[in-house]
Amino acid sequence: MPSNGIDHRGRQVSLLARMAHEEATSTQVGELIAECEADSDLTADPTSDTATNLVRLRRDYDRATRLPSALVGEEAELATQAQHHWAKARAADDFSQFQPWLTKVIDLMRRKAECFGWADGGEPWDGLAEDYEPGCTAAWVETVFTPLRERLQGLLDRVMGSRTPPSNAFNELCLPVDAQERFVRSIATQIGFDFDCGRLDVSTHPFCSGFHPTDVRITTRFHENNLNDAIGSTMHECGHGIYEQGLRRDMAGLPLGSAVSLGIHESQSRMWENQVGRSESFWHWCHGELNKTFGSAVAGLSFEDVYGGANIVRPDFIRVEADEATYNMHIMIRFELERLMLKGELDAADVPTAWNERYREYLGIDVPDNTRGCMQDIHWSMCAMGYFPTYTLGNLYSAQLYEAACVAMPDLEAGYAKGEFAPLRTWLNDNVHVHGRRYEAAELCQVATGSPLSADPLMRHLESKLSAIYGL
Amino acid sequence: MPSNGIDHRGRQVSLLARMAHEEATSTQVGELIAECEADSDLTADPTSDTATNLVRLRRDYDRATRLPSALVGEEAELATQAQHHWAKARAADDFSQFQPWLTKVIDLMRRKAECFGWADGGEPWDGLAEDYEPGCTAAWVETVFTPLRERLQGLLDRVMGSRTPPSNAFNELCLPVDAQERFVRSIATQIGFDFDCGRLDVSTHPFCSGFHPTDVRITTRFHENNLNDAIGSTMHECGHGIYEQGLRRDMAGLPLGSAVSLGIHESQSRMWENQVGRSESFWHWCHGELNKTFGSAVAGLSFEDVYGGANIVRPDFIRVEADEATYNMHIMIRFELERLMLKGELDAADVPTAWNERYREYLGIDVPDNTRGCMQDIHWSMCAMGYFPTYTLGNLYSAQLYEAACVAMPDLEAGYAKGEFAPLRTWLNDNVHVHGRRYEAAELCQVATGSPLSADPLMRHLESKLSAIYGL
Repeated sequence: MPSNGIDHRGRQVSLLARMAHEEATSTQVGELIAECEADSDLTADPTSDTATNLVRLRRDYDRATRLPSALVGEEAELATQAQHHWAKARAADDFSQFQPWLTKVIDLMRRKAECFGWADGGEPWDGLAEDYEPGCTAAWVETVFTPLRERLQGLLDRVMGSRTPPSNAFNELCLPVDAQERFVRSIATQIGFDFDCGRLDVSTHPFCSGFHPTDVRITTRFHENNLNDAIGSTMHECGHGIYEQGLRRDMAGLPLGSAVSLGIHESQSRMWENQVGRSESFWHWCHGELNKTFGSAVAGLSFEDVYGGANIVRPDFIRVEADEATYNMHIMIRFELERLMLKGELDAADVPTAWNERYREYLGIDVPDNTRGCMQDIHWSMCAMGYFPTYTLGNLYSAQLYEAACVAMPDLEAGYAKGEFAPLRTWLNDNVHVHGRRYEAAELCQVATGSPLSADPLMRHLESKLSAIYGL
Repeated sequence: MPSNGIDHRGRQVSLLARMAHEEATSTQVGELIAECEADSDLTADPTSDTATNLVRLRRDYDRATRLPSALVGEEAELATQAQHHWAKARAADDFSQFQPWLTKVIDLMRRKAECFGWADGGEPWDGLAEDYEPGCTAAWVETVFTPLRERLQGLLDRVMGSRTPPSNAFNELCLPVDAQERFVRSIATQIGFDFDCGRLDVSTHPFCSGFHPTDVRITTRFHENNLNDAIGSTMHECGHGIYEQGLRRDMAGLPLGSAVSLGIHESQSRMWENQVGRSESFWHWCHGELNKTFGSAVAGLSFEDVYGGANIVRPDFIRVEADEATYNMHIMIRFELERLMLKGELDAADVPTAWNERYREYLGIDVPDNTRGCMQDIHWSMCAMGYFPTYTLGNLYSAQLYEAACVAMPDLEAGYAKGEFAPLRTWLNDNVHVHGRRYEAAELCQVATGSPLSADPLMRHLESKLSAIYGL
């Protein structure tokens, strides 16, 4: 956005946010929901599509009506302004420029959390997280994250001590962007992203926008010296896209035609990016495809070079560039800090110190500056607090759902080596996508896998793979 | 858009168009306007800002309320569908695929024109043109276009017969796109497009979107072998952008902070593209800049090569690639055909024949296929009928306004050779932009130039320039 356009944009988004909120929370909508609830024909079978939609619509309506329109408008305007000042402060590596905006965001987020409230024994964070991960509380996240962190730290110590790390040769190649684009398009097609119902374009930060199951837009990015990033980003966004394309068309716009939560959405992207896209079997297929597309430029790479190169683990500062094992540490740090900020126990001014202390403790690295530290992510400047844990929940749901798919289809992974990915996509269609918001995330996990969410599947996945690759 | 996404998009835009129309035509809006009109404090001085805004708001409201919401929704959906089928038919060069959609468009446009009605002695075309060029009728356009066509044909005959046409060497260069981009950005800055209040990006078809005077987005395009197109497209869109940036900020969203008409908008883009960007003085400056940016790649080009190369005239099939002299012939052909379609005197099926006949008569060329013929433009498929003449009106207003600026500032053109463009921008700010919709186009022309619109200034401009370049 042009620098002088901020004020107008702030007023516009504030107005639109207020108008949309007033439409969604109008008395008329409430009366229509109540009228449907009172109609026993519609609610007689509580598991029917209509009754299920009604329960979710009621929940959304009741939650939305807890927020005054003025606060909704204020948040939209603050997010626009704070994001702008965050970008400037980050470019200048000057936290003092961002600090007053972060203070305003914390204040507004605390007021917003008060509007929603939280259960007995809960805390302000819970009130906000509900927007991203219905049913999720900080206490529950802590019970999932704590054992995960302990086991991850043990695994990382062993990986860092390995005397036989994989070769990095694959990541040092320089490959033309146009050939990379052809390559990732063919992968997207092969794993089941439907180009008649979607597009793939380029952006600085990859993302997915789903307007309808027939119109799903994803983006990826290319760097000459990082094919792995293009493959990972593309498969990640394809995972989001395949979820959106797999939602029920007859329920478009209704809860049963919508995604469960950000955590479950992320489980779909992470599954194709990591469980599939960094697996041994996938690389048996992909190694052959690399040779077909890039010819002599990759001829010197063995299977071990490409598979190992796609699975290198190294603690570093930047979340979005983190590997599969260290990624979750970045999330835990953010979760701990935003929990404290919302409780009023951590001021904006103290965020850099608290951030850097945790990076030293959890990842053993010294953060060199705030641009590569607490100002690296856009989220807080967008008034998105309570959001970060959904990334790690996504990793956990992904591993657990994937284990269940492998149990149901013992030959699943063997198929990847032949380029066969349809069985996994179909399993996800049938066990996740088709349900829309019928279940909340924790319940869906139980229904689809038979167990509540646990850190075990993710740790089994990482420990088994990295032990083999790093010779632990 | 992904091919399967059309139906959903059609439903969505139809719903949004209906909702926006219902907001704009609500009884409440009408009552508020009437209340203001009844307040003599607001209307005592009919030339005051408030009284002027009120007159325009009343006009817009009365016009909008003539359309039923259902028709607005129908048009939005048809435009989505017809545009999709136009693109497919065009790619396949198969008019028969587009014909049924064009038939639907003609039918809907005739019904829409009936809703608006037209003055005694007028015709359906007038009812639609009012949306793009308030106050414009087909009969008036004809009185302006007829002498223009006759004089243009005479000029084109002489140009085609020239024994000393300019060299085409400038247009045969192959120049790297990144250097072209730096080059046109520096031109945009120099002529006064404010990058603190705007952006310049790349798209297949260049365009300008003005959200507010502080946030104006323009695009351009690059081809290695066509720097002239990049310069022309950039200056054209800068002209639109400088208009949007020059509107009154204190009137943003109101008639006095809005553009007069498409014709006046186009006059601003054409002035920077043609009157300035193809002038001798401009190329004295630009020739030096070319050498600074492209160095040895352009070292062999004389001033005559670049100035002449930017002014080559050649009748061809494609409107958007047409030169300054033949361009208007393309517009006249479209105007004549849509006038007949709206009167019910030309069926969709007969459009290709009528089109090709006129290209033979007006431009002396045989259209090779419908893709390069009547299916080249998107407008009719978007339900935009009554729109095309605004392009030629823009050329005419541009020439006439520019003559007035030159009379007011006799040294104006001499400044270009030194890279001085601020005087023209300031004159346009003061004589066009600041007025917003205070005057209708014809009235603004009278106020700013002292005369009603005439084909004379454009013909003087073309005849004088081309006589020198072509040695006529």
